[in-house]
Amino acid sequence: LNPLFANLGTTIFEVMSGLARDHQAINLGQGFPDGNGSPAIVAKAQEALADRPNQYPPMLGLPELRQAVAAHGARFFGVDADWQSQVIVTSGATEALAATLLGLIAPGDEVVMFEPMYDSYLPIVRLAGGVPKLVRLAPPTWAVPEAELRAAFGPKTKLILFNTPHNPTGKVFSAADLSLIAELCRAHDAIAVCDEVYEHLAFDGTKHRSIMAEPGMADRAVRIGSAGKTFSLTGWKVGYITAAPALMPVIAKTHQFLTFTTPPNLQAAVAWGLAQEDGFFQTLGQEMQRKRDLLSDGLRRLGFDVQASAGTYFLTVDIRSLGYPGSDADFCRRLTLEAGVAAIPVGAFYDGGLETPYVRFCFCKDDSTLTGALDRLAPYL
Amino acid sequence: LNPLFANLGTTIFEVMSGLARDHQAINLGQGFPDGNGSPAIVAKAQEALADRPNQYPPMLGLPELRQAVAAHGARFFGVDADWQSQVIVTSGATEALAATLLGLIAPGDEVVMFEPMYDSYLPIVRLAGGVPKLVRLAPPTWAVPEAELRAAFGPKTKLILFNTPHNPTGKVFSAADLSLIAELCRAHDAIAVCDEVYEHLAFDGTKHRSIMAEPGMADRAVRIGSAGKTFSLTGWKVGYITAAPALMPVIAKTHQFLTFTTPPNLQAAVAWGLAQEDGFFQTLGQEMQRKRDLLSDGLRRLGFDVQASAGTYFLTVDIRSLGYPGSDADFCRRLTLEAGVAAIPVGAFYDGGLETPYVRFCFCKDDSTLTGALDRLAPYL
Ligand SMILES: CSCCC(=O)C(=O)O
Ligand SMILES: CSCCC(=O)C(=O)O
Repeated sequence: LNPLFANLGTTIFEVMSGLARDHQAINLGQGFPDGNGSPAIVAKAQEALADRPNQYPPMLGLPELRQAVAAHGARFFGVDADWQSQVIVTSGATEALAATLLGLIAPGDEVVMFEPMYDSYLPIVRLAGGVPKLVRLAPPTWAVPEAELRAAFGPKTKLILFNTPHNPTGKVFSAADLSLIAELCRAHDAIAVCDEVYEHLAFDGTKHRSIMAEPGMADRAVRIGSAGKTFSLTGWKVGYITAAPALMPVIAKTHQFLTFTTPPNLQAAVAWGLAQEDGFFQTLGQEMQRKRDLLSDGLRRLGFDVQASAGTYFLTVDIRSLGYPGSDADFCRRLTLEAGVAAIPVGAFYDGGLETPYVRFCFCKDDSTLTGALDRLAPYL
Repeated sequence: LNPLFANLGTTIFEVMSGLARDHQAINLGQGFPDGNGSPAIVAKAQEALADRPNQYPPMLGLPELRQAVAAHGARFFGVDADWQSQVIVTSGATEALAATLLGLIAPGDEVVMFEPMYDSYLPIVRLAGGVPKLVRLAPPTWAVPEAELRAAFGPKTKLILFNTPHNPTGKVFSAADLSLIAELCRAHDAIAVCDEVYEHLAFDGTKHRSIMAEPGMADRAVRIGSAGKTFSLTGWKVGYITAAPALMPVIAKTHQFLTFTTPPNLQAAVAWGLAQEDGFFQTLGQEMQRKRDLLSDGLRRLGFDVQASAGTYFLTVDIRSLGYPGSDADFCRRLTLEAGVAAIPVGAFYDGGLETPYVRFCFCKDDSTLTGALDRLAPYL
């Protein structure tokens, strides 16, 4: 068996969701919204199922969705991209990441990444034969440590892989962060691959910035988006890649052997969704900010030391203030079993796992789910 | 860039479909049915879109679909499998193959494969670090060459990867073929991975046999199926793996980082579909056999030397009888541009491409599409 995968555990999200199901816990672990998603977009998918061929769409995606992805990137994030030479539709952002990394990395290439990081990144980088160069964001603000980042780049650096707005910390990379990353990429002739699935979920007036819009980066960046996160339809598994023109062909060739294509009815509905008015996307962010506040305020009242979250579906708490003696992983397990609320240990976002004092809660839920969780936590603490 | 993918061409199916679109040719190249697929199953997907959460389903698939896959394998092909420890739902058979091969193959492992073969096999085997051991099926009957096959197995053999009913030749592996493969797997402690997506498309009373039902193979086989082929819904990209219990965990861990999950509404509809009466599946095979006859008879009348096809969506012709001087690839190109009918050169199914005298035509089309193609070919020849 491939030792890379044989020695891995099941993803922490699946583990905690399973535990939550088994113990009827309220699941504030895995990041997915309650409910059915945007009804108007769901209706479009229903129409498309009946009205269009349910056969292979073009390998790169429906032209209308590829155009919509390019137009949406230009409208909101200043990313000007030609849809025909730069956009690929994938079966979710997970596949987008796999196709991008397996296409771009040659064995022996160095790949700069930040810890904590989303848990699919390292296995795929290693599968490609990449050599991870890990740089730890500095808690509690999760600042980019400039000296370490500079030191991580070198002549063998093929790419930097990062994520903003950042899961699990809720950090939104600043203009200075992005400008430093861009400078290092230009200086070392490296590529930037950025997972931007939470691009519309930045709060308090903070704006998400795309690495592709930084000077000189249009030719050396790949950005990844997801209909799951933008339309609260995580089960649809429609993702999209916008890549520098020179990088797209190899990513497309990798994609064709990973999934080949993505269901055309869902693609058509997402194309329609991306063309909605600005207000749709603003409301999404505002609603999520309100939910963040609902959960943060509640947790704070219960005595949690809640960290700032400027974006994503997530906030983190520092459990030291509770005087809890065990690890973040123990804490999450006990919270699920004993309080009936599931959360995710931030230590699971480090290579091989790490004991940290941080625990991640998901707030992209119905208000009643959030208040229900707070009600369960109150007597427990 | 990863040289494995950078040096590859775009898949021949996409190339010929593009050429067909650009030249308004009738596309008998890429294997997908005309039309919208089974209306009853499409209606189930529409209902599921409205009635269920459009959020991440369990990583291994909806329990109801996993159960349906196991029950269907037992009902038709004598494959007894426990759904919880053996079935994984994937985003199409392409992802099923990628997850299986990337999970099972460790760098340096030898992988036995037959040529001609489906074009995603080799890139993925090589990405995993596998060493291909290629054995050519012997035209015109595409017999398994026993001595070569025996010689291809050795102490480093990790697995044999094959496909029955066989694309592109239409060969259905016989009881003797499967018994030889099983014998070699047992003798060399090797795994058999079998792409059985055309399992319901075997003609003239020939029965598809699954490698997993051979003696001793339940513990060392993986079989792959596809709703696309079984319900004429190739765009849905719902595939499924039935794996020996010891092999499933590593495949699941690979799957979680390739796509993670597959849309729940499509999964629910496919679960419903797999539970239909035997007659549904028999009708599918009978209809396809009728279409094979329609196209074979027509091509024969036009002077083509049509080879026997016992299964799949495809038949092949030997172009030598036409006195055509060029390669199969040239022939297909000219047929598309000059006659307005696209087909696929069988040489594209060999490592690095080969000049063969064989050309593949797809017959899973509306009768009017098939007769339209024949009408275009008549004056051209
Ligand atoms: C792919 S399952 C995990 C969902 C998610 O993005 C998260 O919880 O971090
Ligand atoms: C994945 S595109 C190819 C469809 C097919 O199976 C074929 O034409 O052989």
